[in-house]
Amino acid sequence: MTMTFSTDKRFDLIAVGRACIDLNATEYNRPMEETMTFSKYVGGSPANIAIGSSKLGLKTGFIGKVSDDQHGRFIQSYMEKVGVDTSQMVKDTEGHKSGLTFTEIKSPKECSILMYRTDVADLNLRPEDVSEGYIAQAKILLISGTALAKSPSREAVFQAVDYAKRQNVPIVFELDYRPYTWQSEEETSVYYKWAAEQSTIVIGTRDEYNILENSEGNSDEQTAKALLSSRAELVIIKHGVDGSIAFEDDGTITHAKAYPSNVLKTFGAGDSYASAFLYALLNGNSVREALQFGGASAAIVVSKHSSSEAMPTVEEIKALLAQHEQSV
Amino acid sequence: MTMTFSTDKRFDLIAVGRACIDLNATEYNRPMEETMTFSKYVGGSPANIAIGSSKLGLKTGFIGKVSDDQHGRFIQSYMEKVGVDTSQMVKDTEGHKSGLTFTEIKSPKECSILMYRTDVADLNLRPEDVSEGYIAQAKILLISGTALAKSPSREAVFQAVDYAKRQNVPIVFELDYRPYTWQSEEETSVYYKWAAEQSTIVIGTRDEYNILENSEGNSDEQTAKALLSSRAELVIIKHGVDGSIAFEDDGTITHAKAYPSNVLKTFGAGDSYASAFLYALLNGNSVREALQFGGASAAIVVSKHSSSEAMPTVEEIKALLAQHEQSV
Amino acid sequence: MTMTFSTDKRFDLIAVGRACIDLNATEYNRPMEETMTFSKYVGGSPANIAIGSSKLGLKTGFIGKVSDDQHGRFIQSYMEKVGVDTSQMVKDTEGHKSGLTFTEIKSPKECSILMYRTDVADLNLRPEDVSEGYIAQAKILLISGTALAKSPSREAVFQAVDYAKRQNVPIVFELDYRPYTWQSEEETSVYYKWAAEQSTIVIGTRDEYNILENSEGNSDEQTAKALLSSRAELVIIKHGVDGSIAFEDDGTITHAKAYPSNVLKTFGAGDSYASAFLYALLNGNSVREALQFGGASAAIVVSKHSSSEAMPTVEEIKALLAQHEQSV
Amino acid sequence: MTMTFSTDKRFDLIAVGRACIDLNATEYNRPMEETMTFSKYVGGSPANIAIGSSKLGLKTGFIGKVSDDQHGRFIQSYMEKVGVDTSQMVKDTEGHKSGLTFTEIKSPKECSILMYRTDVADLNLRPEDVSEGYIAQAKILLISGTALAKSPSREAVFQAVDYAKRQNVPIVFELDYRPYTWQSEEETSVYYKWAAEQSTIVIGTRDEYNILENSEGNSDEQTAKALLSSRAELVIIKHGVDGSIAFEDDGTITHAKAYPSNVLKTFGAGDSYASAFLYALLNGNSVREALQFGGASAAIVVSKHSSSEAMPTVEEIKALLAQHEQSV
Repeated sequence: MTMTFSTDKRFDLIAVGRACIDLNATEYNRPMEETMTFSKYVGGSPANIAIGSSKLGLKTGFIGKVSDDQHGRFIQSYMEKVGVDTSQMVKDTEGHKSGLTFTEIKSPKECSILMYRTDVADLNLRPEDVSEGYIAQAKILLISGTALAKSPSREAVFQAVDYAKRQNVPIVFELDYRPYTWQSEEETSVYYKWAAEQSTIVIGTRDEYNILENSEGNSDEQTAKALLSSRAELVIIKHGVDGSIAFEDDGTITHAKAYPSNVLKTFGAGDSYASAFLYALLNGNSVREALQFGGASAAIVVSKHSSSEAMPTVEEIKALLAQHEQSV
Repeated sequence: MTMTFSTDKRFDLIAVGRACIDLNATEYNRPMEETMTFSKYVGGSPANIAIGSSKLGLKTGFIGKVSDDQHGRFIQSYMEKVGVDTSQMVKDTEGHKSGLTFTEIKSPKECSILMYRTDVADLNLRPEDVSEGYIAQAKILLISGTALAKSPSREAVFQAVDYAKRQNVPIVFELDYRPYTWQSEEETSVYYKWAAEQSTIVIGTRDEYNILENSEGNSDEQTAKALLSSRAELVIIKHGVDGSIAFEDDGTITHAKAYPSNVLKTFGAGDSYASAFLYALLNGNSVREALQFGGASAAIVVSKHSSSEAMPTVEEIKALLAQHEQSV
Repeated sequence: MTMTFSTDKRFDLIAVGRACIDLNATEYNRPMEETMTFSKYVGGSPANIAIGSSKLGLKTGFIGKVSDDQHGRFIQSYMEKVGVDTSQMVKDTEGHKSGLTFTEIKSPKECSILMYRTDVADLNLRPEDVSEGYIAQAKILLISGTALAKSPSREAVFQAVDYAKRQNVPIVFELDYRPYTWQSEEETSVYYKWAAEQSTIVIGTRDEYNILENSEGNSDEQTAKALLSSRAELVIIKHGVDGSIAFEDDGTITHAKAYPSNVLKTFGAGDSYASAFLYALLNGNSVREALQFGGASAAIVVSKHSSSEAMPTVEEIKALLAQHEQSV
Repeated sequence: MTMTFSTDKRFDLIAVGRACIDLNATEYNRPMEETMTFSKYVGGSPANIAIGSSKLGLKTGFIGKVSDDQHGRFIQSYMEKVGVDTSQMVKDTEGHKSGLTFTEIKSPKECSILMYRTDVADLNLRPEDVSEGYIAQAKILLISGTALAKSPSREAVFQAVDYAKRQNVPIVFELDYRPYTWQSEEETSVYYKWAAEQSTIVIGTRDEYNILENSEGNSDEQTAKALLSSRAELVIIKHGVDGSIAFEDDGTITHAKAYPSNVLKTFGAGDSYASAFLYALLNGNSVREALQFGGASAAIVVSKHSSSEAMPTVEEIKALLAQHEQSV
């Protein structure tokens, strides 16, 4: 199957939510205690997806709140530089700081993060910061689970979704589950269910769907069936190195393998996957081709040092796919 | 039109939300500063509706959280005494107190309230406190706007609504807007819109619908049209002494007058209206008859000292209606 | 020993801290669940002491913050009516409510209270609300333990103490320990020790001194010795029905019995004790006589329904003392 | 004058308070937006003073709370490595993070910092975390203004001061004013005055003394006179490039010049000053010599990249002093 999208929109994709700072260990394969230098990158799932999409050539925009300080200005200028429209990025006027993520790479399989998320600027986006006219200009609106973790960002997403529905803009929900800042798994489940019910495309890992369902017992088929009975037309369930599965509302099920990679770290895999998957879909490729594109993009990013800066070009993705004798 | 409801349910109506303490001035027609004695009653819109419905003969249940102290025990024992099932009323284990409302009656037209709502027990109801099996036993689930004002009560209502939809239990949304505890009108609007979209019946005053719409410009017709395009089948807009209007999804519009009354105070009018309106509807009466029932019940309560204790019987309502030569 | 005080001051006593609302069960000798009516009084230890002192004929003033609503206006007008100067009582401009205390009298020996103390107005008194010129006009400044429980009221007391020391106004510390609103017993001990070190007279029960010392092992002698080694000249330790003991810095120890009473409830005993004790001391009576005055005043208040309203006159106290053949 | 200290103690100096992470721009002379790499150091005034003192050869200990994560472990291991006893450094068990300070060096005169101080571990030190037996082993206890900014760290300092006074350990108060986390200047003034009244030595800049006094009108002489009338014996007022002035309780006033330096940034000047000043005093030098030592140490640190790592040795300080023909 291929999906069709509006052709007369200013933006291919508008993402709403978190844009933060990643501080990546410059010296790695060691505990963070022994890392003495950190490199600064833009981070945060929806920001990374906007950046990744933009690098692939999509026209993208971003709705979010950043700190009114050096970090906030860096985020905005970097995103502008790679082509993301930041006209709807607002500065926090109440002194909230940008979120931080220190990454630790002990080994390719032992990666962890240390997050500063207490009362950060991105979670202070307000409903009145969201413009209906802006959302109306997008082929798709991408929402991200983390933006639902706290008020008033939560209500800003409700507002964005309400506008998207009124403007017939399909919604893509990237589950992006981070346990920080949520009060309880019951709370997460309540808002994840709500968001999934509003969305045309839902993307997440098997673990994230368990959070959505507040249950560990469901099969992929059960999960997909429940979501497809609502507004969703396409449900992607990712299984890491075991690949991913797409369920469509016409009953089609598509399996895709993951691509082997010289893994440096695991960060950024999901965001690069979503960028490339949506790029392919928006360019008229089949769901199968989009799954391959997403998988290839993830394989490239996990072999590199950063998340945002490492987002591949279309040529890099095609080269990797060609190498695996799977042309798009 | 008449609406039809399940016939094989244990409860006619289950209400979820706030159950508090009213402290009504014993000496009135004076400022509260000069009132030296207060009488204690159960209060809170959904509790009052459960109590009022129960007095009219409906089988009712209540889902809510009360303080683990003398006030919480009073609320529970009073509601049990008038026939409300309180098996799903949970005690707060974290020391939160029951909300309080001191009422001041300077004159029939100058009534005001002084509320204690900071971190009260009812706003601490949690999603895991709500039982799907219990909600499945109801003909209708009544939700109230105030319960959406704060987490985790907000998520408990989302949970209850999710269960009701899965169990095909129609939802009645009583707007019950109280500015306290809401962060902003934008926040209120977001959750009021969400709740209205889930509901089969929506009841509120014109002012409350303006809050829902975060706008003052809409006519009753515009408001009703927007809501009826979603899941709603019946929208009631109340105009105080100017009566109320019902909009149905088949296009029927029904106007009803308010009944003259020897007004002592204005408190409790909305709750008694909802109780009697739903009683009539659940008993197979037409929308027109239900509007009359609601109006008569409100006229009785505003002539008496309390809200909960003053909820009328069916005979009292019929007597008032007969007196006005409008038999049901 | 008699203590000497300035003679040229406008006020005998200025109290700083809590002024709240008591809601006393009109029907008693039953659990509060069965009480349906409550009578309203001014409450709060320093407010009661100011009221009690004023009824005894002292010139008193009060520094505190009350809610800008009907309850706050009642507190201010009642205190003015009994002669307390309220020119330094400020209205809360941020919506904080007045504290509430519901009293339950199951039997004379089973009294309990239900307090509403979450973010109340009195705990929001600020350092800048306190006037050095006002404190300079007092013979003594009375501070109360509860006002130290939270910022910014805590800092307001620090400020008041700083002014009193600069103006050579002796400080009386009434321990008035209420576990509500304190974070931990260690926190209480820290500020109680600080306050006791600044004070000339310290008054409390044995249990309250244990809180001050964060220890249960000390004898009255040990407690008094530690405090008298600092600025204190007089330490009163109360033992309920077993009477009270005064320790002076010249080594004098005075024991006093409690007076038998037809006890209705135990509330208000401490505040009436402090009022009458300070009245006697300020009027040139010996410590022994002051202890008797305090004990007699407490015996009268515990036989009556309220705390503030029941504060006795000098004649009532003298009559009780005469009856016990102990003239002042 | 020279001051005398106990000779039989295990530690020369124990510091209590903040130990955090500094993230210093690796590329400087530019806005932080353009800095892409940051180097990690231990930071926080009392931690820096303990580190600086230890590098000078003093036996030092530290009382504080750090995060239970990679940053907290780095702080502890670094301080141990330079010889600070960390047996009384406790790990936060509630998930609070270590404070962060990003430094920006636009030019030697345009330095600024970006701090993460929201609910950090160091401000969660509790009174019960402080050991009287440990403090008893110190020649001096150093307290730092920032630790007074929030509960429960504030009460932990009260507790430490109470122990020090009982154990006759003189207290040194380094004002270390940071506007973050204080509610108001009135609040700061209240606790700064309290701390200064408990202290034998007080060290701060002129601006910081204005904060203590909540006033800008006082001369150095007025400030010193007020403090020396309490427990203080020595008051140091720093004037940046204009040098510093010491006021002693015997009336002696000593002026000292600042030393010229090839300034890279201004951070760390105060902490290195305090370390060397106290080192000299504890080693029997005169106040004049101690002022020179402090000034020389500051001149060295401002010419280097970090604060903690750049703390000089005695030889470096002596070399600089010799170079200025001012031998110690």
